[in-house]
Amino acid sequence: MTSKERGILIVLSGPSGVGKGTVCKALRGYAPELVYSVSATTRTPRPGEIEGVNYFFKTREQFKRLVDTDQMLEYAEYVGNRYGTPRQFVEETLNEGKDIILEIEVQGALMVKQRFPEGVFIFLLPPSLDELESRIVGRGTETEESIQSRMSVAMDEFRLMDYYDYAIVNDQVEKACSRIQSIIVAEHCRKDKVMNKIKQWMVEVK
Amino acid sequence: MTSKERGILIVLSGPSGVGKGTVCKALRGYAPELVYSVSATTRTPRPGEIEGVNYFFKTREQFKRLVDTDQMLEYAEYVGNRYGTPRQFVEETLNEGKDIILEIEVQGALMVKQRFPEGVFIFLLPPSLDELESRIVGRGTETEESIQSRMSVAMDEFRLMDYYDYAIVNDQVEKACSRIQSIIVAEHCRKDKVMNKIKQWMVEVK
Repeated sequence: MTSKERGILIVLSGPSGVGKGTVCKALRGYAPELVYSVSATTRTPRPGEIEGVNYFFKTREQFKRLVDTDQMLEYAEYVGNRYGTPRQFVEETLNEGKDIILEIEVQGALMVKQRFPEGVFIFLLPPSLDELESRIVGRGTETEESIQSRMSVAMDEFRLMDYYDYAIVNDQVEKACSRIQSIIVAEHCRKDKVMNKIKQWMVEVK
Repeated sequence: MTSKERGILIVLSGPSGVGKGTVCKALRGYAPELVYSVSATTRTPRPGEIEGVNYFFKTREQFKRLVDTDQMLEYAEYVGNRYGTPRQFVEETLNEGKDIILEIEVQGALMVKQRFPEGVFIFLLPPSLDELESRIVGRGTETEESIQSRMSVAMDEFRLMDYYDYAIVNDQVEKACSRIQSIIVAEHCRKDKVMNKIKQWMVEVK
């Protein structure tokens, strides 16, 4: 029997308001075979949250050790708590031959790219700038000032799209999911992924 | 209105016996929006063959001129007749924003790659070497010697897979078609294809 082909790490990212979370949630329905990355955090578990499902809960000391030993693919701090993506869970999933998807902010995605360049990086785009603005406004929680600030951050983040492999427009959630699924199929068909099979054939024939 | 996105040239290739023709025929049903490249030939039209549909019929003089002026993406000679892929038809189709597929032998595909490196090159593989051999035997037209010769050519051609972008296994025709369709969707989502849109946004905002 041949050894199992390794899985692919898919990183889904894009500016705030573009619909990363919605797309990723819908994708769970369309692509149940995909594994969803579990983050580590130093915040205390909320009622009902399960270790290894919602988060890997870590002390600040444990978290720091993971960062210091390069065991975090990316990490950031929000309102006094640290969040990050542990490399171990990703590696174990890939070694089982499963694909894993990581939904993450643009800055975090670039950190992952440095540590895991063989990942497939997908940038999610709004259909238009107007649409992005109305999605941010639609949340109803933002002041005029914070809306403009978010739009300005988004513009800076669009420039970082150059570090990504793919860019897909989130015009309709189903379409965006279908495009992501096509990208995953295509990446499994990359010549390099199949080259080992051929090398085996060459040995058989000799 | 923004200018239409340019189409993609897909080159489907692989050793003799792997099922290129069968897959390409089935794909016409699954992907009617794809344009199929029309070859030029110096052979005389058979009854019912239509210029520009079955072939572009050329005199040897016309064909030679197309080759000499680099208007042929690839060409070869079979039993006294010349066959080739005229660049003009491909370019016109791409400029209309349509994708075009070219089904072709491995050597021809490498000629196309030299002249049209931005094409997407897909190598079709048999599920196994045994299966390839039984497909060649199954034609019932080959001697033992010619079967071995075809297998040996196939082995040489597998080594050329390295010049391709993708490799797909033709285990089932529908699956092979579906993989090709995923590759086409993914290629349209490549970051470079979407970059122009972003550049336009940057201008809008300034």
